[in-house]
Amino acid sequence: MMEFTEASPLMPTDLSTSLKTWQQRIRQELWQQVIPFWLNHSLDWQWGGYFNCLDRNGQRYDDKKYVWLQGRQVWMLARLCRMYPEHPERQRWLEAVPLGLHFLRRFAYRPQDQRVYFCLSREGQPVYLQRKIFSECFYVMALAECARLFADPTLMQEAEQVFAAIWSWVSQSQTDWAQDSIPPGRPRWPGSPEVSELAVPMILLNVIGELAGSYPEQEQWCLARIRLHHRPELNLVLETVAADGTLLNTPEGRLLNPGHAIEAGWFLLEYGERTGDPEGSLQTMALEMIAGSLAVGWDAEYGGLFYFLDRQGYSPVQLEWSLKLWWPHCEAMVATLAAYGITGSLEWWQRFEQVANYTFAHFPDPEYGEWFGYLDRQGQVSQRFKGGPYKGCFHVPRALMWADQWLGRALDLQVQGVNPQNKRR
Amino acid sequence: MMEFTEASPLMPTDLSTSLKTWQQRIRQELWQQVIPFWLNHSLDWQWGGYFNCLDRNGQRYDDKKYVWLQGRQVWMLARLCRMYPEHPERQRWLEAVPLGLHFLRRFAYRPQDQRVYFCLSREGQPVYLQRKIFSECFYVMALAECARLFADPTLMQEAEQVFAAIWSWVSQSQTDWAQDSIPPGRPRWPGSPEVSELAVPMILLNVIGELAGSYPEQEQWCLARIRLHHRPELNLVLETVAADGTLLNTPEGRLLNPGHAIEAGWFLLEYGERTGDPEGSLQTMALEMIAGSLAVGWDAEYGGLFYFLDRQGYSPVQLEWSLKLWWPHCEAMVATLAAYGITGSLEWWQRFEQVANYTFAHFPDPEYGEWFGYLDRQGQVSQRFKGGPYKGCFHVPRALMWADQWLGRALDLQVQGVNPQNKRR
Repeated sequence: MMEFTEASPLMPTDLSTSLKTWQQRIRQELWQQVIPFWLNHSLDWQWGGYFNCLDRNGQRYDDKKYVWLQGRQVWMLARLCRMYPEHPERQRWLEAVPLGLHFLRRFAYRPQDQRVYFCLSREGQPVYLQRKIFSECFYVMALAECARLFADPTLMQEAEQVFAAIWSWVSQSQTDWAQDSIPPGRPRWPGSPEVSELAVPMILLNVIGELAGSYPEQEQWCLARIRLHHRPELNLVLETVAADGTLLNTPEGRLLNPGHAIEAGWFLLEYGERTGDPEGSLQTMALEMIAGSLAVGWDAEYGGLFYFLDRQGYSPVQLEWSLKLWWPHCEAMVATLAAYGITGSLEWWQRFEQVANYTFAHFPDPEYGEWFGYLDRQGQVSQRFKGGPYKGCFHVPRALMWADQWLGRALDLQVQGVNPQNKRR
Repeated sequence: MMEFTEASPLMPTDLSTSLKTWQQRIRQELWQQVIPFWLNHSLDWQWGGYFNCLDRNGQRYDDKKYVWLQGRQVWMLARLCRMYPEHPERQRWLEAVPLGLHFLRRFAYRPQDQRVYFCLSREGQPVYLQRKIFSECFYVMALAECARLFADPTLMQEAEQVFAAIWSWVSQSQTDWAQDSIPPGRPRWPGSPEVSELAVPMILLNVIGELAGSYPEQEQWCLARIRLHHRPELNLVLETVAADGTLLNTPEGRLLNPGHAIEAGWFLLEYGERTGDPEGSLQTMALEMIAGSLAVGWDAEYGGLFYFLDRQGYSPVQLEWSLKLWWPHCEAMVATLAAYGITGSLEWWQRFEQVANYTFAHFPDPEYGEWFGYLDRQGQVSQRFKGGPYKGCFHVPRALMWADQWLGRALDLQVQGVNPQNKRR
């Protein structure tokens, strides 16, 4: 496997064929292999919600319902309904949306403190409440997407209210809590510095993009935070920095999560496209984040993106550091395609093809559908299940859906003979 | 690599030579490779305590001090001082003991609630307090061992007081907490059953063995709990069962941790030896636990013990399930040797050799000393560091020390022509 930067040259004459071939392959995977897996195996018509823990062939190995994945599946199916209004299978997706939405609203949400559980029993009893805010974020995304799908302003109002709560926790403006509340967050002890985690501004920027309201203050906060993590002088994106942006020389402070950084770059590209980016400074930052993280994260020996690295080359303390996970590859396909679509640069198309070739050669399971989630460093399947506590109906279909959209846009522009970069400016 | 049960036959005439060869190899590793690594690299003469995060060559990659490992290193060095009173290097160990002991007592212990931090900064400021009780357990072991080494009854009294607190939490007899207390344990939610975790009775039985006082009620509780986890009908030891012993058909309830089960079996064997076991029922259970866990946990393809397995063959949800960790191999060497020493059965000697051959072929680092901690399934080094948040001066030297002791005992009995089994009864 070559190093990432040495992608083989591609003749521009092949390009249109390549775009069409990839679009066909991606659509076939999405409609024949991925969505049917979830519709056939995950829907719990008895108790509501979706089963998450599904073995290679769809067999259930646990009844628990993980709320990140409940919210994400609602979002995913609802978004497909809006994105592909003419698809012949749309009615099946549409029926599956309220199954998750009602379960979430009834069982995952805690009215007393606006918090959202992390895990529920099959019947909806709480199993676990995380200290993190991500259950709440995916809950908001599910509600907001359904508000649009069903043209229901009450759902959007609920989504905005929970988002307001999340923001009050993150910005530390909420100080009084009711008696039976369980505030998020860990206590900070005097021996550890106050830090900024990339995950927080990144997910909030993504959530804001789903809401109807306008959040300029929150957006600026997210952008400023992301800038603390992007270090052009190192050509790296750091997962954790001190709250004032200082680099920390500890395993946490040296941690790289290339897939996460690439996802953040993609969110920024999309944000720039959506809101306008007159000086192109967001685009520049986003492209640097994606290119730099692909370069540092790619395994020159066996191919694929490492899960974690230490920026000074120490062994990460995370035991799973060398695994190849499905989601960084999903995010990298979308990010490189979006970068290609926006810049029109062949370099980005070559990056897309290198990621997509590895991804399609290793993750799909033609026999039972969906993708394997966890490979060892050499690319062998390490965990055979298709759904687990952190893997559900989300990253694979979302990546395939966005890839289909970006490929379609690039093909349209080719037909029109437009260089996308010129079109934008 | 053969399956575990197919160990090659060994002629009894070779046995005495084998015992001596192994003892020599083990002593050389302990004195030349392992203890010097920690004495040369871990001692913080400036702030006290021990550095834990040491790269392959001993270089520090983080200053944080993990309290499990602080307590364990105090225990280890103090026990070596007592076990090898004539060793020429003893003075260096003896000087390193108070370095950790004073740091622990001054910085790790919280007088307001008798809890013990999980992690401290180099200077001793708190970094993290776990919800688990293991920091407290290793703190007690450190104090008790030092009480013996220094003949200091105050230290033993402190150890017994903290143990009393741990017991009050585990048995839920402590109900009122001071204002600024942080009780251990997670809240239990209605959707998840009350469970028993093997780790708790196992570590408590180990801690009780270090104390001066008599704890018959606590010992009986530990034995009864361990019995819930040992399932002769399955020939398995389960990490987690319902509090009433019911099997749980969930990933948690199906989880096997062979190294942990083998360690528990060894603690039981030792407990039976120490306290007397007139009907031999503890010994029978312990030997079943060790033999069953070796059989199920051994990787027939690449050798070595898996970290985690699912008893019904699903992929464990733990991403690191297939790694080969140093400590299960350490525990398995001691457990098989103890089983051989107690039963005199050649089968156990063969099991020891199979484990020890794999272990010595893969984990030691002749170049820089100590052992690698984490190998991938195929046996390649996955994490090159020698010390990390969960690996310190403990499992390797403890295993080598006990192996030396058991080999010495077996050799003494051979010289006397005694079958150990006959001697015991």
